[in-house]
Order: sequence, then structure tokens, then C-alpha cells
Amino acid sequence: MNAAPHFRRIALIGFGLIGGSIARAAKLQGLASEIVTTARSEKTRARVAELGIVDLVVATNAEAVEDADLVILCIPVGACGAVAEEIAPHLKAGAIVSDVGSVKGSIVRDMAPHLPDNVHFVPAHPVAGTEHSGPDSGFAELFINRWCILTPPEGVDAEAVERLRAFWAALGAKVEVMTPDHHDLVLAITSHLPHLIAYTIVGTADELGQVTSSEVIKFSAGGFRDFTRIAASDPTMWRDVFLANKDAVLEMLGTFNEDLSKLTRAIRRGDGEALFDHFTRTRAIRRGIVETGQDSAAPDFGRPHPPLAKQ
Amino acid sequence: MNAAPHFRRIALIGFGLIGGSIARAAKLQGLASEIVTTARSEKTRARVAELGIVDLVVATNAEAVEDADLVILCIPVGACGAVAEEIAPHLKAGAIVSDVGSVKGSIVRDMAPHLPDNVHFVPAHPVAGTEHSGPDSGFAELFINRWCILTPPEGVDAEAVERLRAFWAALGAKVEVMTPDHHDLVLAITSHLPHLIAYTIVGTADELGQVTSSEVIKFSAGGFRDFTRIAASDPTMWRDVFLANKDAVLEMLGTFNEDLSKLTRAIRRGDGEALFDHFTRTRAIRRGIVETGQDSAAPDFGRPHPPLAKQ
Repeated sequence: MNAAPHFRRIALIGFGLIGGSIARAAKLQGLASEIVTTARSEKTRARVAELGIVDLVVATNAEAVEDADLVILCIPVGACGAVAEEIAPHLKAGAIVSDVGSVKGSIVRDMAPHLPDNVHFVPAHPVAGTEHSGPDSGFAELFINRWCILTPPEGVDAEAVERLRAFWAALGAKVEVMTPDHHDLVLAITSHLPHLIAYTIVGTADELGQVTSSEVIKFSAGGFRDFTRIAASDPTMWRDVFLANKDAVLEMLGTFNEDLSKLTRAIRRGDGEALFDHFTRTRAIRRGIVETGQDSAAPDFGRPHPPLAKQ
Repeated sequence: MNAAPHFRRIALIGFGLIGGSIARAAKLQGLASEIVTTARSEKTRARVAELGIVDLVVATNAEAVEDADLVILCIPVGACGAVAEEIAPHLKAGAIVSDVGSVKGSIVRDMAPHLPDNVHFVPAHPVAGTEHSGPDSGFAELFINRWCILTPPEGVDAEAVERLRAFWAALGAKVEVMTPDHHDLVLAITSHLPHLIAYTIVGTADELGQVTSSEVIKFSAGGFRDFTRIAASDPTMWRDVFLANKDAVLEMLGTFNEDLSKLTRAIRRGDGEALFDHFTRTRAIRRGIVETGQDSAAPDFGRPHPPLAKQ
């Protein structure tokens, strides 16, 4: 099927990092005759109008979705159910309704019951982001070479799924389809657990009695600073993720704790061989990630290094 | 005191990421009339000779230190004691002997007893690195704006400490002096624990039954890939670090586990407020690290994004 990625009117509910990046990329690619957006706060709406990326900034979600062919909720997972209920009476027949949430089971449970039968509900999750948030943080290149996962419920119109696939492909993404439950398990290990661990260790460092915060900051290039990036992500978004994907996260945490106990025991016993074997095995995964273009091959993520000033 | 950073002859024992970076930067800055190096394997020595960065590549540590004014061991922590014993009879009177190990208590315990009284022993730790290793991985800019920690034993010649400080400053580093024990505690939280956690979670992801390795790799941009970088670090170096800094690492692990239990409980109970508060607090540390120049302010570590191909 060769679906056209173009929509007459796209409505973006929410204009943070993801909504703002979709708007920028869709505009650049000419994917909509008109992009309309709204955001909860007046301040954000004013800033979005000022940025001049979208065609129309409106004050309510109901206005935003009116006459839209594609509606994408770009808001925290926990807010999606209420917004689905709010926009349902205003949706155009035949519209595609989607989202960008990092959890999919709860999105289906929260949104689907509110949506009318004459729209196509295709939940989506672009696995991309940065630690920044807000209307200024988006950029058109965010989705390039990243995966976008679609989790259409059974029986949803195949053409609607193909149109959304074509849309994400035009934003630069690679698209995969899976069930919401499998999505939530995969993301629990590739995204949710890493964030939880990063949030934990950064909190630990912040509260130590014997090492000052300024020492933690000064000597963070030893590895710690890598964790602070994702621990600087949007708190509302991540609160919602952990509440919405509780079961899968707790399951992954259980496995992680077992593995951490094993390595802790190896350290306590001075079992150098066990440590060496483990540390050798983990190198292979990094190679896979770099080889498939999911991370930079440059050392240190390609962080910039200023030149050495001549003595 | 305004010590000169220049040495007549510098001997670097080991030519991996750190040794190779010191050689490149020292040469660029003209910090030595002659740089001599050695490495354990013939293959590495041949490659170093080919690179043409140092003046002399020799086959034994004894030859390397002969007549050197500054000797720096750039080898895994666990190997330093034996090398100190090996080079001791060949050291020049008045030479400064240093190292670059990530643990300092064990270095002092392992090396000091072997060294003659007529040399100045000033252990050092440049808190800098990448996930790459080997003779080709070094670069002259590695130490710029990074901290180098000196842990001189009590009674060591103040002028020798100042000369080593000037040397590291000329390589671009900022220098701090502290006790070996405090160093080991600080690095346990800023470097060793982060590495252990990263090694653990990458291992966990590698062994899951329900999620395939290829899925872990594909969807790693959700956060996981950040951990794989430090989990790709040199296995020998890190085995030695955990064996040598066991007590401080186990102490930090204890605190980390308590904090992880607290967040786990918040998830299990659905305590969104506790999660939100924690996630807000951890943002501040990131700001401190970026503001002090210890990490890039660019989103996503400044990872490159290719442009969007026009539709």
C-alpha cells in the first residue's frame, strides 16, 4: 500500500518537545495544508504563536480538533484519557486520532472508550527525545532514523494505519507495528528502567553526606554526568510513565536487582573473572547500537572538545 | 609557586587511551625534550612506533624509566604494584613517579613500599576518558577543562607536587589535591557506581527472554543507549577498579539500593507526588554540571542529527 502522508488539517494537542518537533518537520515536508495547535497554558500558546511555525493557535482542544483529518495528542500519558473524552464530540468523521505517549496499554485503556466509532484510533510512540522540554525545544530532525511504534487496536482500518505510517516515515522515522503489551515490555527495558535508574543515582549523589554536591559536579566526567542527562527529563511526563507502566517496570526492576546482586557479590568476593566476563559481554551491545545507526560512533557521544591552547 | 611544566625526559608506561592522550598533548605543548614509552604487547609497541608521536618506544619498563625525570604509569590499577617493584632499581634520583589510576588508596598501598626514598611519588587521576581504548584512541584535547586529582602522600616534596600540577595544567586540566581515601569515596559515586549500574543494566537487557536483543538495539534511543557507552569501557581497567575500591563502592551501592527501594515503593503504591518531587530535584544537578562546563549544554550531548530529506 502506498499511502499519501499528506493531511489537509493536522491538529496537535500540546506543543512541547514532541509536538513542536512534529510541527516543524511536518511544515518542512509540506505534510499538511494547515497545522493547528493548542496548549494548556496561555503562556505556551503565546510563545507558539510568536514562533510562527503553525498556522493557527487556538485556546481549546475542542476548537483544535474541529475539522482536523489527523489529531495527535502530544501531552503526558496521564492526561490523554480526559482529553479524549473532551475532544470526542468534536472529532470529524473519518479522522485519524493518535498520540505520542511512551506507554501504550494505558493509552488504549484510557482513550479508546471515549472515541466515537467513526474515527480511526492509531496510538503511536516515536522513540526519540532529548532532555529538554517546552515549545522552544523541538526541532525538525528529531525523528530521523529513530523508530516510531504504532499499536493499532484489532480491527482498525488498515488504510488509516498506512497513512499514519507514511506520515511518520515522511518525518524521517522508521515505523514498526506491535501490540500495546509488547510495546510496554520493550520500552520498560529500553527506556523506563534506564530513566528510573538514572533518576535514582542522581538523587543518591545529591544526598550523600561524605561527598559534597560541588564535588559530584566537578568530577562528574568520570561517568556520572551521562546519567544526569536523562535525569533532567520532564518530571510530569516521567511520573505518568511510571504510574502507567507499573507492572512492566516492576518486572524489569526485579531482574535488574537480581543482576546487580550478582555483580555486588562478585565485588565483595573479589571475583575478578566474573567481573571481567560480564564487562566483556556488555561491549557487544554497544557495537550493535552503533552499527545500526542508533547512536554515534564518535567517542563520548561526539561531545565537543575545544582545542588545546598553545603554551 | 610557579613551577615549570617542562621535563627533560618523560617515560609513559602504557600507551592506551590515557597514555596516548598524555603523549599527544605533551608533544603539542612541548612539555618534554624526549618522550619515551613502552607497552606490554609487541603489537602495541609496533603501532606506537608507527604513529610517530613519541621519540622512543622501548621493550621493557626498566629501559623506559632510565634517566626519566617524570615517570607516569598509564596501566590498569591492578598492575601498578608489580610495575613499581620492577622499575624501582632503575629510577633516576629526583624523578617524579606518578600514575593515572582511578583508585588512589590501593595505588599508594601497592606502589609506595617499592619506591626508593630518592624519588618523589605523586599519584594522580585525570577524571577524563572515553569508552574507547588502545593506542589509537588517545587525543590531545582529552584533558581540557577536566579535573586531575593529585593525592600526594604526607611529606612529599612540595616542589614535585607543583611541577606535576603545572604539567597537568599545561595539558588543559584543572588540578585539585585531596587524600587518597577522600578521592576513592568521591570517585565511587561519580564514576565507579555509575559504571557498575551501566554494566548491570546492559547485561540485564542482554538476557531478557521476552524482549529480543535486536529490539533492545532498535529502540535504545529511549534512554538505554546512554548506558551502553560506559558499559563499553575497557573490561580489564574496570575489573581492577572494582577490586581495588571495593569498600567505597559497596558503601555507595548500599545507599543507591535504599534509594531505589524508595522509588520502587512509590511506583508500586502509585505515589505520583513522590515521583514528581524526586524527578524535579534531579534536574538541578544537571544544570550545575552544564553551567560549570563539565558537560555540553546541547540537547542529547550534542549528538549529530542529519538534515531531513525533502519530500
